[in-house]
Amino acid sequence: MEHRKLKDQDRDVDLAGVDLEGTRGKDLLVPVIPLSTFGGVPGDRQWKRKSLVTIALTILTSSQAILIVWSKRAGKYEYSVTTANFLVETLKCALSLAFLMRIWNREGVTEDNRLSTTLNEVSVYPIPAALYLVKNLLQYYIFAYVDAPGYQILKNLNIISTGVLYRIILKRELSEIQWAAFVLLCAGCTTAQLNSNSDRVLDTPFQGWVMAVVMALLSGFAGVYTEAIIKKRPSRNINVQNFWLYIFGMMFNAIAIFVQDFDAVMNKGFFHGYSLITTLMILNHALSGIAVSMVMKYADNIVKVYSTSVAMLLTAVVSVFLFGFHLSLAFFLGSTVVSVSVYLHSIGKVRR
Amino acid sequence: MEHRKLKDQDRDVDLAGVDLEGTRGKDLLVPVIPLSTFGGVPGDRQWKRKSLVTIALTILTSSQAILIVWSKRAGKYEYSVTTANFLVETLKCALSLAFLMRIWNREGVTEDNRLSTTLNEVSVYPIPAALYLVKNLLQYYIFAYVDAPGYQILKNLNIISTGVLYRIILKRELSEIQWAAFVLLCAGCTTAQLNSNSDRVLDTPFQGWVMAVVMALLSGFAGVYTEAIIKKRPSRNINVQNFWLYIFGMMFNAIAIFVQDFDAVMNKGFFHGYSLITTLMILNHALSGIAVSMVMKYADNIVKVYSTSVAMLLTAVVSVFLFGFHLSLAFFLGSTVVSVSVYLHSIGKVRR
Repeated sequence: MEHRKLKDQDRDVDLAGVDLEGTRGKDLLVPVIPLSTFGGVPGDRQWKRKSLVTIALTILTSSQAILIVWSKRAGKYEYSVTTANFLVETLKCALSLAFLMRIWNREGVTEDNRLSTTLNEVSVYPIPAALYLVKNLLQYYIFAYVDAPGYQILKNLNIISTGVLYRIILKRELSEIQWAAFVLLCAGCTTAQLNSNSDRVLDTPFQGWVMAVVMALLSGFAGVYTEAIIKKRPSRNINVQNFWLYIFGMMFNAIAIFVQDFDAVMNKGFFHGYSLITTLMILNHALSGIAVSMVMKYADNIVKVYSTSVAMLLTAVVSVFLFGFHLSLAFFLGSTVVSVSVYLHSIGKVRR
Repeated sequence: MEHRKLKDQDRDVDLAGVDLEGTRGKDLLVPVIPLSTFGGVPGDRQWKRKSLVTIALTILTSSQAILIVWSKRAGKYEYSVTTANFLVETLKCALSLAFLMRIWNREGVTEDNRLSTTLNEVSVYPIPAALYLVKNLLQYYIFAYVDAPGYQILKNLNIISTGVLYRIILKRELSEIQWAAFVLLCAGCTTAQLNSNSDRVLDTPFQGWVMAVVMALLSGFAGVYTEAIIKKRPSRNINVQNFWLYIFGMMFNAIAIFVQDFDAVMNKGFFHGYSLITTLMILNHALSGIAVSMVMKYADNIVKVYSTSVAMLLTAVVSVFLFGFHLSLAFFLGSTVVSVSVYLHSIGKVRR
């Protein structure tokens, strides 16, 4: 696992503050907190936890993609995506609550793990869910300018936008080598996805490019903002933070059902077209979502991007065995570039 | 020009010795000579000279490729390649002699610029020419296993073989970042050349791969060996060294005419099928050859590899304007990776 190499990269990086809640005055900036002090966990245990959530995210993301291939092979899927998304949020919410209950039983209710919250704390939680909603709505319009494989390629812009927003919003430093590694990650992932029709993406009209960039920024901003929210209160239990994130996720996905699939749900029913694979996909999405939150808490957006990129490559390799896929020369070249990128990221740690 | 960034990379690297002439005993190793003392030239002038020869090589290599495209467009070329190669060597020899005469007129004949030599000095000069001959002969056989575009892709193995042999034979150090950059250079150049038929190269049979690796090693070894010969006597005038290199080049290319094209030359004449483009190509090859020698003298094989790789990209960009070529997405991705590689090579300088 190349991710082992990621272990140390931000041990020395401070979490500079962001004015998340629009509070002015004495509470303007989050204090600069060295990550190694999070939750008072010693460095070694912290590193283990970070590795664990990273590996979990990689495996979940890659099995997610495999489930998508499997469901496509099993025939066209007819369930409504918005209801599935709503169920994913609901399941995540329920799981967070279940984890919390175990903790309450074991440790009792404390200041850090109580579910009740203040308006000050909770007011920023709807923002990531709202951003994702806007991005998902935009997604319907971008297909007027690019086809689906072209969109897959343009989505790699997320890598760059996440890096840039991570730098600007979280004020975390990346070394020049880590920046170079990030450009390589984007180029390598795109190369690995190249096929004989990829050149069509170059004919994308200007509006298509603008939408792709806006969507990349929305997605990157939502990710970075989630990290800022979660890390603003390092001692707060992650399951409480998740619970509130997912409550708003449920709300915004309910809106999406009304906007996009109201008629279909009314006529055919909420669970129309659901199958075993659909259920597995929802379960997997829910677990991946929780893993992403954990990575935001114990690692960062950069680790998340690397994790999901490596997952993309793993998926392709596993698909060779499961579905008899052929790997292209472009895939080997892209994987080489991504591997070098992971290596450079790990050795390019910021020195102070 | 990205090459400006290469300026400093081996100012601090010593040239460790190689037993070039099989001499044993007191003369076993070339003394360790800091490059900055070559020819007693101060650092600034040395850097200017290094940049100049590197830029010249880049421009000549890229116009070489453009001439090849032009000649293909102008119709099938019917001249024999072996006679053209022989003329290239002859022209290089004549040019070296002309440069020498100017120097003799200006500075008089000295120990360093006299043409006469010892058996000890001259005995290693045939080796690069012999290696290139073997490689060129092998080239005819590899086409039984791969097609021409596949061979172009496999030729990128030269980059890796040059790096490895540079390290082993010249005992020059590359930092871990520079090694990563070298892998990226190879992956990036290959990516930039990808087209819809490139995947066929993955079906190359085992013998084809073996031959490709052997040819890459022969070519890399010839390059590194030439550098070792030229740098073994830092104060010796480069034109004398070139003269002797090219004399043996002429001899071995004469052998190639006899082996491969004796009948054609006898029946149709030596200059059959020559045209204006052929003449320009021969002139360009001769100048590029001299530029390669200069790069070996004042820079090294690594700079040569970067220079010719960047030239490959320049050629494609220029071809857009000259021949209306379309650049592929793969080309943009490959160029990005090559650019990052050049950047990493320049910042990854070995620190001692």
